Amino acid sequence: MMDTRKHIEVCFTPGEYEYFKDEFEIVVVIDVLRATSAICAGFANGIKSIIPVSTIEEAMEYKAKGYLAGAERKGQIVEGFDFGNSPYSYMRDDFKGKEVVLTTTNGTKALNIAKDAETVVVGSLLNLDALCKWLEVQDKNILCLCSGWQDKFNLEDTICAGAICEYLLSTGKFQSDEDSSIAAKYLFLSAKDNYFGYLKSSSHRRRLKNLNLNEDIKYCLTPNQTDVIPVLRDGKLTDISK
Amino acid sequence: MMDTRKHIEVCFTPGEYEYFKDEFEIVVVIDVLRATSAICAGFANGIKSIIPVSTIEEAMEYKAKGYLAGAERKGQIVEGFDFGNSPYSYMRDDFKGKEVVLTTTNGTKALNIAKDAETVVVGSLLNLDALCKWLEVQDKNILCLCSGWQDKFNLEDTICAGAICEYLLSTGKFQSDEDSSIAAKYLFLSAKDNYFGYLKSSSHRRRLKNLNLNEDIKYCLTPNQTDVIPVLRDGKLTDISK
Repeated sequence: MMDTRKHIEVCFTPGEYEYFKDEFEIVVVIDVLRATSAICAGFANGIKSIIPVSTIEEAMEYKAKGYLAGAERKGQIVEGFDFGNSPYSYMRDDFKGKEVVLTTTNGTKALNIAKDAETVVVGSLLNLDALCKWLEVQDKNILCLCSGWQDKFNLEDTICAGAICEYLLSTGKFQSDEDSSIAAKYLFLSAKDNYFGYLKSSSHRRRLKNLNLNEDIKYCLTPNQTDVIPVLRDGKLTDISK
Repeated sequence: MMDTRKHIEVCFTPGEYEYFKDEFEIVVVIDVLRATSAICAGFANGIKSIIPVSTIEEAMEYKAKGYLAGAERKGQIVEGFDFGNSPYSYMRDDFKGKEVVLTTTNGTKALNIAKDAETVVVGSLLNLDALCKWLEVQDKNILCLCSGWQDKFNLEDTICAGAICEYLLSTGKFQSDEDSSIAAKYLFLSAKDNYFGYLKSSSHRRRLKNLNLNEDIKYCLTPNQTDVIPVLRDGKLTDISK
């Protein structure tokens, strides 16, 4: 009998996306620390839309046109911008109902790499349950694309991807075939009782800790704070949960 | 106080090697199923040297010159060759003392990518303990380069790399900084009591099982069958343990 279950798979880095992309209708872009968490926080706070751009120059052009524009590189706000990818900067009252432009080291790069997929959706621990339930009913092949850290594997994105795999596999409607998916699930299962403790040895967390971003990290590692489903359409993210 | 410990890190795929290569003096190339296991089995059986080549054409040229030459692609022996990367094919009596040429899908590709490193050594579960002890006394920064499966992450190479990390970290003389190294160690720790059971869901093992290679897999997943240390010098692997 043919196995009609859809696939849920994990790609560890944007660089490997080319080996996966042709087989998936939905790509979940994940950058837990901090771009996709900030995007979820922004929509939870009532931002109207977010335009992810790859370069600082593009963000600067939008800013010159009067847009609210943020830029982050190597964990810090880029000179000339007022905000980067801290989730807290997206909770400001004056952002409600606005269109915001954002460029980050890893997350917006991954969003742009995936932009030709049928559907691109933003994943983080913040919208984990809502996202999993939404993915479950789409009846599509799903790829979790981890943003990584400067083209390398990172633990926090992998664990978030593993959580999505674990949920969707448990429904019986999905299967995983790739070793990366199996590894992500194993890593999630060993991390799930204490993300913060598990990730304490993660290179990325250590890097952000040096920048005094512990509050951000705690926020980003706290699952299910919002039900937003940010989807990329025509170069713009909007929350389709409403 | 400056941390003077050397690094032991893990690169999951040959494609990511470029992000790592400049910081390591020793590269351990790992292709558990089956190229680096076959190489270890060959040296354990008294083969004099092995010339890893990237293409079938190169292997064919050597064969035309009278060399013993093997070629594998997608798990199977390439037409026109007598052997591929099954460890059992390297245990033949007529291979003792001989120079053998080999090309494989993943393993010899990884060896060639790493060839400009100061030292390139072959790792597998078969020579795990001997290799770890040898690495411990070199006092160098070490990168485990997993061959992966067709440019993607695989579990068995990662677990072997994780075993090397775990050993070297336990000596107190090494540190790991990359999330890939931390993940490899976690995956090894959850797999170490039963490699065969752990990898039963691995895509690669399933693929090889379809080719009736269960005996090969059992052999490759049985640690510490030999003390060989195959090192690449001037395009040729020899066992420097003797």
